[in-house]
Amino acid sequence: MKIAIDAMGGDYAPKEIVRGAWEACRETGQQVILVGNRNILENELDQLGGNHAGLEIAHAEEVIAMDEAPAVAVRRKKNSSLVLAAELVRDGHAGALVAAGSTGATMAAALLRWGRIPGIARPAVAGVLPTERGVTILLDVGANVDCKPRHLVQFAIMGSLYANKILGIQCPRVGLLNVGEESTKGNELTQETYPLLQKAPVHFYGNVEGRDIFKGTVDVVVCDGFTGNVVLKTGEGLADVLMNMIGQAIQQSSLAKIGATLTLPALKKLGKKLNYSEYGGAPLLGINGVAIVCHGSSKALAIKNAVYRARESVENGLISAISDSLKNTSLHKVGCADGN
Amino acid sequence: MKIAIDAMGGDYAPKEIVRGAWEACRETGQQVILVGNRNILENELDQLGGNHAGLEIAHAEEVIAMDEAPAVAVRRKKNSSLVLAAELVRDGHAGALVAAGSTGATMAAALLRWGRIPGIARPAVAGVLPTERGVTILLDVGANVDCKPRHLVQFAIMGSLYANKILGIQCPRVGLLNVGEESTKGNELTQETYPLLQKAPVHFYGNVEGRDIFKGTVDVVVCDGFTGNVVLKTGEGLADVLMNMIGQAIQQSSLAKIGATLTLPALKKLGKKLNYSEYGGAPLLGINGVAIVCHGSSKALAIKNAVYRARESVENGLISAISDSLKNTSLHKVGCADGN
Repeated sequence: MKIAIDAMGGDYAPKEIVRGAWEACRETGQQVILVGNRNILENELDQLGGNHAGLEIAHAEEVIAMDEAPAVAVRRKKNSSLVLAAELVRDGHAGALVAAGSTGATMAAALLRWGRIPGIARPAVAGVLPTERGVTILLDVGANVDCKPRHLVQFAIMGSLYANKILGIQCPRVGLLNVGEESTKGNELTQETYPLLQKAPVHFYGNVEGRDIFKGTVDVVVCDGFTGNVVLKTGEGLADVLMNMIGQAIQQSSLAKIGATLTLPALKKLGKKLNYSEYGGAPLLGINGVAIVCHGSSKALAIKNAVYRARESVENGLISAISDSLKNTSLHKVGCADGN
Repeated sequence: MKIAIDAMGGDYAPKEIVRGAWEACRETGQQVILVGNRNILENELDQLGGNHAGLEIAHAEEVIAMDEAPAVAVRRKKNSSLVLAAELVRDGHAGALVAAGSTGATMAAALLRWGRIPGIARPAVAGVLPTERGVTILLDVGANVDCKPRHLVQFAIMGSLYANKILGIQCPRVGLLNVGEESTKGNELTQETYPLLQKAPVHFYGNVEGRDIFKGTVDVVVCDGFTGNVVLKTGEGLADVLMNMIGQAIQQSSLAKIGATLTLPALKKLGKKLNYSEYGGAPLLGINGVAIVCHGSSKALAIKNAVYRARESVENGLISAISDSLKNTSLHKVGCADGN
């Protein structure tokens, strides 16, 4: 099975996208179709040297920019790298899509070319966040700014399936993001969602608060796409700010500078743990095919890992599992052994 | 003017509350009424030794616990330290209230004993967050989980007044927390709020995203209380987790441990900058009196600074400024020179 990659989307496209695909191919033999301007992509491959067996190029004239209105761009730019990559999947030439450009445009391309999984009301973008204990899946992080309780229930089911089937988490715990732990807390949306999650086929932990997200209290956190997007970006921003401030504080003292040199290897190890690139991007859940969106600032490592997550999602039958979960009316909890 | 403090609320009450009041009194001669169990508070004062001129005790039999339903607790526990402290302000014995117990109960006590400022639809809790550039006021952080656009406009005005009159920020910039910078982005609430903020008497910067909050892109960030509460707690949680992880990473290497000793003074200076205690708690805005809520884990420093912010809020006429702003229909922007 081949993976189609939009080679023109992302802050470091096409160089880092091509390198990520090339590394995935070299490491595991994974076949990849790079979609984009053929001349540019061939040039990038030449610079990498060596053997390019397993890497194909599909030519695309256009590129969708980050600031274009997603649905409009997908409708107008029929020859864009993103749209053609989605069509390669639709037509069976590739098994999954990886993209590092606009998340909105990727969602629009996937929705318009593949459609939703029957029964799914709203597809979601699932953020995979590094936490103190491992990773937590936060969804939705941006596709649906206004949600109904039944949407959050479907997010809980889809998030649990991704946690279980792709990240290997047994009986994933689901938390409802809220302003307090008590079941009576919250806004209209969360108050109405709570009892639905108690009855849903997931391992519902209860309400969780903002501070629980990066502590890793649960495996899956569900919320509307407005809150999720704000949380995701707040976390990114704060981590950047803290690291900058630590760097500046250390630069102001020569003793501290020497000290920092000694702590550097330990901090680098930590940086690796916190690096979202290790987790391979955000899956789009609920659309009728596998798509992974990488952060705009992704380099080769993130692309390579996204290719692996995309392959695992196909091999482990993520789409049919989501589809089946909607038909299954039993109380069996997603990813848990019977009786849990 | 005296400040009334609920001496029994908070994780470190009454010891740290009493010490904070005592330090404020010793440093600046600020008079404080400590409200709580007389025997316990006298004992705490005795342990501090020295002169207690300027510190009074008002006896209260009861204490409102963190997990009590706010409005119910305030109605039932009429002899609680919090309710009696609010009554001291209502009856003119004190000029402002400081509390480190339940934020909800403090809001309820202030609302039930003092009422709202006429014209204010919804009082808000304003978080004062340390950022890369100084501080940012985020409101609402919890009082109103479901908001209307006109509530957010009032939050913008009240936040601007606090930024200008108490934190000394000239012509404070107001951002609307959203999922993108473009004016068309957002959920129903933010899309309807954007044009109202353009016409409001504040220096409206436009939409800001989660990553802008701790960068300090603007001085005041407005959002509904659900999102604000989640952001506040996400920030606290992530900062804790990062610091823990750095500590653990360093402990695992003896070289890193030596290095850390050398960087410690620089990091301590940074810790001071990031310590919310320096900023003196969260003002409750829109109620008809001055109330500052401190974090539950506040120690003496936070209490002392909250006492100072409370005094400044009274001396700088915060309440009448908010009240006047509602009558003023001109386009003069809060805290800005004419013509800005």
